[in-house]
Amino acid sequence: MLEQLKEEVFNANLDLPKQGLVKYTWGNASAIDRESGLFVIKPSGIDYETMKPSDMVVIDLDGNVVEGDFRPSSDTATHAVLYKHYQEIGGIVHTHSTWATIWAQAGLDLPAMGTTHADTFYGSIPCARYLTQEEIDRGYEAETGNVIIETFEERGLDILAIPGVLLHGHGPFTWGKDVHSAVMNSVVLDEVAKMNLFTRELNRFSEELPQRILDKHYLRKHGKNAYYGQK
Amino acid sequence: MLEQLKEEVFNANLDLPKQGLVKYTWGNASAIDRESGLFVIKPSGIDYETMKPSDMVVIDLDGNVVEGDFRPSSDTATHAVLYKHYQEIGGIVHTHSTWATIWAQAGLDLPAMGTTHADTFYGSIPCARYLTQEEIDRGYEAETGNVIIETFEERGLDILAIPGVLLHGHGPFTWGKDVHSAVMNSVVLDEVAKMNLFTRELNRFSEELPQRILDKHYLRKHGKNAYYGQK
Amino acid sequence: MLEQLKEEVFNANLDLPKQGLVKYTWGNASAIDRESGLFVIKPSGIDYETMKPSDMVVIDLDGNVVEGDFRPSSDTATHAVLYKHYQEIGGIVHTHSTWATIWAQAGLDLPAMGTTHADTFYGSIPCARYLTQEEIDRGYEAETGNVIIETFEERGLDILAIPGVLLHGHGPFTWGKDVHSAVMNSVVLDEVAKMNLFTRELNRFSEELPQRILDKHYLRKHGKNAYYGQK
Amino acid sequence: MLEQLKEEVFNANLDLPKQGLVKYTWGNASAIDRESGLFVIKPSGIDYETMKPSDMVVIDLDGNVVEGDFRPSSDTATHAVLYKHYQEIGGIVHTHSTWATIWAQAGLDLPAMGTTHADTFYGSIPCARYLTQEEIDRGYEAETGNVIIETFEERGLDILAIPGVLLHGHGPFTWGKDVHSAVMNSVVLDEVAKMNLFTRELNRFSEELPQRILDKHYLRKHGKNAYYGQK
Repeated sequence: MLEQLKEEVFNANLDLPKQGLVKYTWGNASAIDRESGLFVIKPSGIDYETMKPSDMVVIDLDGNVVEGDFRPSSDTATHAVLYKHYQEIGGIVHTHSTWATIWAQAGLDLPAMGTTHADTFYGSIPCARYLTQEEIDRGYEAETGNVIIETFEERGLDILAIPGVLLHGHGPFTWGKDVHSAVMNSVVLDEVAKMNLFTRELNRFSEELPQRILDKHYLRKHGKNAYYGQK
Repeated sequence: MLEQLKEEVFNANLDLPKQGLVKYTWGNASAIDRESGLFVIKPSGIDYETMKPSDMVVIDLDGNVVEGDFRPSSDTATHAVLYKHYQEIGGIVHTHSTWATIWAQAGLDLPAMGTTHADTFYGSIPCARYLTQEEIDRGYEAETGNVIIETFEERGLDILAIPGVLLHGHGPFTWGKDVHSAVMNSVVLDEVAKMNLFTRELNRFSEELPQRILDKHYLRKHGKNAYYGQK
Repeated sequence: MLEQLKEEVFNANLDLPKQGLVKYTWGNASAIDRESGLFVIKPSGIDYETMKPSDMVVIDLDGNVVEGDFRPSSDTATHAVLYKHYQEIGGIVHTHSTWATIWAQAGLDLPAMGTTHADTFYGSIPCARYLTQEEIDRGYEAETGNVIIETFEERGLDILAIPGVLLHGHGPFTWGKDVHSAVMNSVVLDEVAKMNLFTRELNRFSEELPQRILDKHYLRKHGKNAYYGQK
Repeated sequence: MLEQLKEEVFNANLDLPKQGLVKYTWGNASAIDRESGLFVIKPSGIDYETMKPSDMVVIDLDGNVVEGDFRPSSDTATHAVLYKHYQEIGGIVHTHSTWATIWAQAGLDLPAMGTTHADTFYGSIPCARYLTQEEIDRGYEAETGNVIIETFEERGLDILAIPGVLLHGHGPFTWGKDVHSAVMNSVVLDEVAKMNLFTRELNRFSEELPQRILDKHYLRKHGKNAYYGQK
């Protein structure tokens, strides 16, 4: 069942420690097959050295296990809520990567201060609020997904133009058209989080990138007039 | 004698440089066999490239060498005191890992500022006081163990809910139900020490994690209602 | 066509991630054959794991593709402008390396604070201004080259004595007599950017290197009285 | 001639990039044979990937080349001056390692703030002054050695109890009873330089290590009552 997608999700999960985003099993990546409405996610707390593609777990859009020998990632319900609400998302990644988590712990939006940011994220990456006690009681992981949606809707953000979020006191989620893009977006997010922290330390008066440079860099890589890469 | 435990302790000691916690031989890991009341610890100052499992030294709870061709770690008496006082500890690790040592040098408790912390430590990680001249004269290493115990008793902390401590001007000790957990707890401690330092630099008004999120994250991984991992 | 130069450029591009200057394909290196007036540059957005020397693209000094199966780096026009204006340049490298980019985002010149800097750069490394909307509309990449030239001419800098520049809000460009030197200059620039940021944090009154030490270090490695290395 | 020492010096030079202290060929290690009064040092600017033990250069205590196909390190005269003045030194290392260089650029002594420092250095590591124009003209490298001697004599420091120095605006030199110790001392120096910088950032009121803890840690590893390691 969904063997190719399992292979992709398996490799994406292995990429997380390779890219320095994850220690041990702290993180999870998933990808969806829109035709069947099923997504594939890593099992919870399995050692990456022994994990196999066939250990990946298949989940429906209500978060139920459809196939799998192991329990899925404890964050599965967050993935389900996001896949259900946003048709354009093909893959999701959650990590506690060092620098993005630092911004999440500081409770601050990550502003666009350079073209490394603008090449991937078309503006500030929002920091979503803490969950309330009521939300935690109702279901921590599903409500985390709802708070992400609330954040993007309140601010009127395009989910693919800003393919990531910081959760206050927790860490980042990123997504993309597929799980490989979602991993790349996590790499970019962590790198710009590091750069922006030290940019502020070096010069506390550092400005955000002018809108014209943000436009130029984002639009030369994204949208109908893009001219980066081979297509 | 205790061949399997020697293998575990040997591997745990090799994990310390692999995880970036230790340079050269700066660190030591041990594990106890509660049935015999004997623990196994690495020899002092032996190069990790030539060290073998059979070089591990067997020690009793009063810190005496029971078996071994080499002198045990110079910190052996600290391990003995902790194993003797706390029946629930199965493994202990000591390092001078960079970021935990920075908090230890600064003489500050490490507060819970994010879920990376809350997933493993149920609250602030205490910084224990310097030893007095009298304590140093009486026996530096054993008294280091006693100061750790004093710190946990004065604050009424559960030794397994807060499986680590910072020693002022020195560095961290961590422990766990086995030596593998003790190593993981050292990795987590160093990572949150790094994250929290830069969280404070980014936003000096950063708050500690709200109690409800601390509870949720700690308790979804620990205790009878845990639902992380495969059991 | 220019097979040896393609091999050099290919290897220089692979050196960028090896030296920790580049993640994924964020960066580009080129080298020129002054006899034919043609330069070789990496293709745009090709995965470094599958890229071959023969995938390199040959370009003339007006930025036109002369040979190649792939589209060249999106920054090709910047390289062309620099090669055309400065006959002494043999290789060019562009990265978003972490610490150099931080200074670029802060919009600050990188001053010479130590001999690591002085061994390679004979004074401050300038930060060039943002492009205007008119310049972006006229051609972002070619105008980036023109702003670099403007910066060096306004300040009366020798292009080989200061073999690098920071672009405000973007990142560094470096160059050299060949592409291997250009890569080394990127490594030095990123390292001194890191050192100088933390030197300022440690002691905000840190001075620039005295002129006599700057002279001594630069001139023992460069120019007719150099005595470093084997020639 | 001195084949075994050449092998040791060769390996010590290769250890510098392995330990992350050196990029490219920025650094040099040497060792002396006290019987013959000759020391062995790496050649200047030779690529570490092609360098062989037999490429090491043999030098007398006046800095003259006695044997070797290549020109010796440009810092050879500094090594010669130190070996001539201090009989107890067996090996010397010079690097531009990141964190030690940051303290050197800041022009600050590196105080003992923790036991990682105290295990190797018995007190503050001094920062030596800039050379004057007259000293540079007389011979930059030999006078660098003289300024190190001046620094230790003015402060009454024991050369083996404080086996390292920072040169203002430049970087560290370390030494030891042999070249392997000198390399280890460079590793320790860079690590404590990093720890102490961030200790100060975390808590600007952080104290130096109390004298009693400095004594205890230094003396349990050094001198006649040492009990660390296997002898």
